[in-house]
Amino acid sequence: MGEKVKVVDVTARDGLQNEAKLVSTQDKLALIEKLVWAGVSDIQATSFVHPKWVPQMADAEDVAAGLARFTGVTFSALIPNMTGYERALAAGIRHMEFVIAASETFNRKNLNRGMTESLQLLKETTRLAERDGVVLRVGFSTTFHCPFEGKISSRAVLNAVRAAREIGPWRIALCDTDGMAFPDHVKETVSLLLGELKMKASDFILHFHDTYGRGLANTLAGLEAGVREFDSSTAGLGGCPYCPGASGNLATEDLVDFLEGMGYDTGIDLEKLLDAAEFACRFSSRPYQGHLLRARRAGACGLAPSVSA
Amino acid sequence: MGEKVKVVDVTARDGLQNEAKLVSTQDKLALIEKLVWAGVSDIQATSFVHPKWVPQMADAEDVAAGLARFTGVTFSALIPNMTGYERALAAGIRHMEFVIAASETFNRKNLNRGMTESLQLLKETTRLAERDGVVLRVGFSTTFHCPFEGKISSRAVLNAVRAAREIGPWRIALCDTDGMAFPDHVKETVSLLLGELKMKASDFILHFHDTYGRGLANTLAGLEAGVREFDSSTAGLGGCPYCPGASGNLATEDLVDFLEGMGYDTGIDLEKLLDAAEFACRFSSRPYQGHLLRARRAGACGLAPSVSA
Repeated sequence: MGEKVKVVDVTARDGLQNEAKLVSTQDKLALIEKLVWAGVSDIQATSFVHPKWVPQMADAEDVAAGLARFTGVTFSALIPNMTGYERALAAGIRHMEFVIAASETFNRKNLNRGMTESLQLLKETTRLAERDGVVLRVGFSTTFHCPFEGKISSRAVLNAVRAAREIGPWRIALCDTDGMAFPDHVKETVSLLLGELKMKASDFILHFHDTYGRGLANTLAGLEAGVREFDSSTAGLGGCPYCPGASGNLATEDLVDFLEGMGYDTGIDLEKLLDAAEFACRFSSRPYQGHLLRARRAGACGLAPSVSA
Repeated sequence: MGEKVKVVDVTARDGLQNEAKLVSTQDKLALIEKLVWAGVSDIQATSFVHPKWVPQMADAEDVAAGLARFTGVTFSALIPNMTGYERALAAGIRHMEFVIAASETFNRKNLNRGMTESLQLLKETTRLAERDGVVLRVGFSTTFHCPFEGKISSRAVLNAVRAAREIGPWRIALCDTDGMAFPDHVKETVSLLLGELKMKASDFILHFHDTYGRGLANTLAGLEAGVREFDSSTAGLGGCPYCPGASGNLATEDLVDFLEGMGYDTGIDLEKLLDAAEFACRFSSRPYQGHLLRARRAGACGLAPSVSA
């Protein structure tokens, strides 16, 4: 058995949130069931955001209620504010992603508040989480690059993560929201955080998009920096809402194949995962955004003579 | 200025060879002109293969004749046999790729001869090349994985490359023909060759396909192993003829963006390269296979509020 790497599937939240056509609660739960069946042990299932902003997530309570049937899986939900926290808590969610940005401009555009206010909100949320036995994960959007501010220096990320860790002992997701990260920058940022803060590699999750085809290269950089947990979205659903036509999140099937092919153990059955990916395609307004399913659909190798290199 | 990395564009050969619809010589030369205009200094322009096998390359002589108008560019052509060599020589080509496989089965299917015969042919070709002042490059198909034999051990590649290098001092292209290479295997293979043979990193060229989205991750592994020259195909044209529907070669625009973003200097103007990629798309029977052009087409960032991570 190879070294374990955890894959967190975020299709039902990040993957679907930008899809205008509403997916039924039943279909969302059917997708989650297929992921569980494939062996995915960590799933971000929904977002408790106001339906005015993300209509696709209006059924967050119903999705949460449907999760009770699955055992042995860690389900989480995104919360943008205190109302989200209270709703998620009431719905039985015990793992929540508190979202903040590494860029002041993106924080304001995405969350309608400044980073200082977000940190204040993290403080209040932490107080409640500790009271309620809720585990938070702090997700930093635009860790490496912001569509408005450009490249984010690893120093700026260090300051932001330090401030968050002074508030609570939460694990940190470094999110490449617009897919503009480069492997050298990923490695530099993770190494700086590990060197300067009292954190272990296991305190980090990396969340890559494949907008520019760099999702797996950035994953490799993350692995080399010691990180062993990655977010991804089945069939590559999702993407940056600020670049609507661009391709999406790193596809879970591409990620799992990549990791398993290098000898890591994800605990996920790739064939069953591809079933889930085929199913997820029906919710996408775009052609398939990943790679593995396309290659598989193309079929096995033929025997036609040719000259190739 | 960053460290130099050479990008060899193979669109006009590898990219087009599997396209059933014939591209006119004029269009091929127009594409090459756009690549030259973008600053691409190394271009594989055609293949002197029998038109019965690859009808798309039936105009090899005409393409070669059209190259005289460009200066300061190294043009090469693929040759599958001695007839190809003689044709290429007569057409004025002075850089040729001699193709062989790292897998016996693939060599037989692709070239209709065994590896021993291929090495014998390399010997004869080398004799002529030295007489004629022709520079060969030995391209090993299926260096990392063969659609028929599966994973190719780095030991087998070592033996094959050693045999080739005993024949002539040619540079070696390690080609991931079916896109099944993984970064750890790439690094292991290159490191073994560098350790066991009297070769420098600059003796190698890496040629990746992006079938499974691993093109850039494998490039990163190659860079980490010291290689500084990579093949790619504009708009991701090409692919393994034995997996017809699968996506193709690593896209030149994705590669150049990746390298420049990490501080390497390719000497290529990305905006002009994207013009070439847009132009190349019209020759493809498939939707666009790269990433960068799709992201660019999606346009600049909007301002819609949402909650993203």
